[in-house]
Amino acid sequence: MAETREVTAAVLVIGNEILSGRTRDANLQFLATGLGEVGVRLREARVVSDDHAAIVAAVNALRATYDYVFTTGGIGPTHDDITSAAVAAAFGLPLVRHPGAETRLRGHYRPEDVNAARLRMAEMPEGADLIDNPISLAPGYRIGNVFVLAGVPRVMQAMFDGIKHRLAGGPPVLSRSLPLFVPEGAVAAGLAEVQTRHRGVDIGSYPFFRHERFGTVIVARGTDADAIADAIADVRALALSLGAEIGDEAS
Amino acid sequence: MAETREVTAAVLVIGNEILSGRTRDANLQFLATGLGEVGVRLREARVVSDDHAAIVAAVNALRATYDYVFTTGGIGPTHDDITSAAVAAAFGLPLVRHPGAETRLRGHYRPEDVNAARLRMAEMPEGADLIDNPISLAPGYRIGNVFVLAGVPRVMQAMFDGIKHRLAGGPPVLSRSLPLFVPEGAVAAGLAEVQTRHRGVDIGSYPFFRHERFGTVIVARGTDADAIADAIADVRALALSLGAEIGDEAS
Repeated sequence: MAETREVTAAVLVIGNEILSGRTRDANLQFLATGLGEVGVRLREARVVSDDHAAIVAAVNALRATYDYVFTTGGIGPTHDDITSAAVAAAFGLPLVRHPGAETRLRGHYRPEDVNAARLRMAEMPEGADLIDNPISLAPGYRIGNVFVLAGVPRVMQAMFDGIKHRLAGGPPVLSRSLPLFVPEGAVAAGLAEVQTRHRGVDIGSYPFFRHERFGTVIVARGTDADAIADAIADVRALALSLGAEIGDEAS
Repeated sequence: MAETREVTAAVLVIGNEILSGRTRDANLQFLATGLGEVGVRLREARVVSDDHAAIVAAVNALRATYDYVFTTGGIGPTHDDITSAAVAAAFGLPLVRHPGAETRLRGHYRPEDVNAARLRMAEMPEGADLIDNPISLAPGYRIGNVFVLAGVPRVMQAMFDGIKHRLAGGPPVLSRSLPLFVPEGAVAAGLAEVQTRHRGVDIGSYPFFRHERFGTVIVARGTDADAIADAIADVRALALSLGAEIGDEAS
């Protein structure tokens, strides 16, 4: 879909618990939504295990391809928290104890509770900029175009909310959706024509089955509110031509 | 963790709706769990948009690296369903109408409802083997080591349940978990030693905050039940040495 220069991002979810099925990831959807609000297009996500080589390879592939990369997970105090060492290796930077992060950690714990494991949370690639953690204190950080965030959802969310308005995004992505009570296969040909007439709008089609009825939600996304409105008007006309009942529009 | 030859897999989630935040993916966790049950290790997942080049690149990267690849999404009748064309391109195979799939579709719809859009769902890479869809009929398929499944969760689940016991997996992955009412940072050093003593078991650590108390769930995973039991016994001993309350074990 033609637009001026888009600002793009990828998310890298790090953690065995997601790939084992133990935990259902909750971070991707939050980041996807938040990035869209500030005009950054999430183009790809990857999930890798707590494996040094896998994290290094993914960080390097993604940071070379997208404007921003957001990692989640693997920055705690235990032996399976290896994200920072891997990110440092990906950048070819030494892993060093960040003085500001150390100060925060030492200020948070009683002196007798400061231990080597907890101080590991201050180890970051040299030159990292801290990202505040208002929930549990141990900070995330930015290095280059990579933002290293916690895996615990409410900590990750608080970290992201603190930085998202500093991201240099494009125009926000707008969206309108319209449910049609008609099966996808009956609306597909007309919908393809609507997409052809509205090249600046990304038109998606999602089947549903609700109250014993088949239907299709049409979603129009883009940065131009008028273009989206025009596309939705065409979808309404298409539904009328098919005799399909139209549900309530949502944004 | 040392083991005999592991059978590995990747999941490729295809769909703009996941990357826009509109939809929270529900397929990864289901596939992760089901693969573990038949001894296949899910090593990586990727999410890409409905973009031909992105799908081709991801399919080729993943099928070259892992024993099995499972794609979800993009096999419906609408213009944004481009998975099959991309998978065919990734394999360098022509996209052809599969006679068996066409027969199923023509048997399902009334003659007047058979249209070009619906017949697109029979277009697959040449040589594809069908995967049954007991829910909504339009089949998935296997080509090489790539299994192409629907995106709608209950359809994807039915397709996967029909094939999973035909996958050539290794021994099933077993798991036991033990909650400790102690912060991660207090248990980390001892836990690293437990991991060192039990190299055949993968020991993960996950913080929680529940009923106003901080805690850590320890998860031990592997294929050897005795080795897992030994590791969990060591974790219990560690908790006792720290004076930490131990919660209910789960598998």
